[in-house]
Amino acid sequence: MNIGIDMMGGDYAPLEAAKGILLYLSHAQANVKLTLIGQKHIIDELLHQRIIPTNNIHVVDAQQMIEMHEHPTKAFKEKQQSSISIGFKLLATGKIDAFISAGNTGAMMVGALFSIKAIDGVNRPTIGAYMPRENGKLGVLLDAGINADCKPENLVQFATLGSLFAEHILGIEKPRVGLVNIGEEEGKGNLLAQATHTLLKENSTINFIGNIEGRDILLDKADVMVCDGFTGNVVLKLAESIYDIVQRREIKDEHFERFNFEAYGGVPVLGVAKPVIIGHGVSHAVAFKNMILIAQRMIEKELMQKMKDAFTGNT
Amino acid sequence: MNIGIDMMGGDYAPLEAAKGILLYLSHAQANVKLTLIGQKHIIDELLHQRIIPTNNIHVVDAQQMIEMHEHPTKAFKEKQQSSISIGFKLLATGKIDAFISAGNTGAMMVGALFSIKAIDGVNRPTIGAYMPRENGKLGVLLDAGINADCKPENLVQFATLGSLFAEHILGIEKPRVGLVNIGEEEGKGNLLAQATHTLLKENSTINFIGNIEGRDILLDKADVMVCDGFTGNVVLKLAESIYDIVQRREIKDEHFERFNFEAYGGVPVLGVAKPVIIGHGVSHAVAFKNMILIAQRMIEKELMQKMKDAFTGNT
Repeated sequence: MNIGIDMMGGDYAPLEAAKGILLYLSHAQANVKLTLIGQKHIIDELLHQRIIPTNNIHVVDAQQMIEMHEHPTKAFKEKQQSSISIGFKLLATGKIDAFISAGNTGAMMVGALFSIKAIDGVNRPTIGAYMPRENGKLGVLLDAGINADCKPENLVQFATLGSLFAEHILGIEKPRVGLVNIGEEEGKGNLLAQATHTLLKENSTINFIGNIEGRDILLDKADVMVCDGFTGNVVLKLAESIYDIVQRREIKDEHFERFNFEAYGGVPVLGVAKPVIIGHGVSHAVAFKNMILIAQRMIEKELMQKMKDAFTGNT
Repeated sequence: MNIGIDMMGGDYAPLEAAKGILLYLSHAQANVKLTLIGQKHIIDELLHQRIIPTNNIHVVDAQQMIEMHEHPTKAFKEKQQSSISIGFKLLATGKIDAFISAGNTGAMMVGALFSIKAIDGVNRPTIGAYMPRENGKLGVLLDAGINADCKPENLVQFATLGSLFAEHILGIEKPRVGLVNIGEEEGKGNLLAQATHTLLKENSTINFIGNIEGRDILLDKADVMVCDGFTGNVVLKLAESIYDIVQRREIKDEHFERFNFEAYGGVPVLGVAKPVIIGHGVSHAVAFKNMILIAQRMIEKELMQKMKDAFTGNT
């Protein structure tokens, strides 16, 4: 397999990306090749300095960069020689099997949706967020902010996509799906949650456990937690801010360390036809390593095929 | 002034209510009278044991109780002799100037909306939640769960009601109003947030500072934070769960102590014509004391009249 990495994406590129690659390669299997995409002279220098070993590494030159503040659609379209645009070209043409970037999130979404496209039957691809539990497990909350307005059918698809991710990538058997709501009983919630509850209950392909409330999001109650992207994004950013507060107050606690969302190494865009992983802008080495590991696992487990099967009914 | 207190409401009634009254009376001004509503023989026993002093206290017998699990509308209608029903009758007829209960929240809402009614011009009364800041200040997030589906105009009214509460009860001059959203820039968000942003910007009676994100909710960025009741309730319960986690992990920290939402002593229903304060089911003495103080302040500051003026344009 061949995993493409945007070397220019993220606040600490390319050095943290390079360090992450080194971390990854120290444990990697021999059959994984990495394609490093970015300004060739910079990447060559990293190779020359032996910050990254040269075996199984392929460099693709991309002279342009999409900056963090640029308008996603415009930049993606106009900067054809950017690392993100070239990465998606390589992915679309099968030169790489997965693409990872900690760069401009919007441009990554544009690339995923327009260069790669959604899996047949998926109306709205989604991005999830990990939610840490005290027992060390992770839950996945989705949508985390890509789809601000949702229909009930969208949330049901998020449940399916999230369940497949949780099962095959996080290794959770029969992942429990919870609907984020404002009451435990059926019939509670806004119109979206009420209608979604009915659809989730009828869906026999997932393990729906019912409504969960805000207080359950950080507990090990549901493995996959679905909501619209507005609620999900507010929840994610609130949870992220907890880590900042804990840090400022110099509280040392193993569990609250897990609120350091940067360490999780980005999340895949679920529902597009090929593995695309979007990292946090402030990603450090461990985050890059973890993103490569997730990409590797998505390829090994043939997650894309499993998702396609789920949406054509060939399960 | 005469403040009515439901002695039977809350998990630790009537003893914690009684202790809260004692705490309050130890600092109270002479011109405040308290009307204790509940089973007379129980209240008389508290007075007899001198748990509560007898001066400035008036007891109103209410032989029935609405339990926490009962259906709000049904119970409120059928249990005419309950402490909540009698409390609202006293409030509606002017026998008391404010009513406080830590009992069945739904029944309290039914009473507020149907016995007292909304202020003319207020489409949807609301309940807020306090959000603690590291500097010790409090922000108010509203709606906290009463209005799951909202229109832009509702959120604008929440902003007005919340601003008046923040100014006159919390003592914040020109309270900053933030719209909870998933991006800082105008134009971000779901359809509700986009439309609300436009309306808030046009509203010259409030101090609108723009969008705030999930990460800002616990920061001292906006004093009044408006969102639909679905988002608000998920945020509130998530924030409440932080305190549980901190407690379980035996973390001692002054700021995280402020996440003990029980201590704040309940929140007023904003937008109804008379002061109604709903406490947390698990309210202890300090919570009851604080609820009485809020009621006292709402009366002293003539908050209801100020709200009426705001909605008839007589500001």
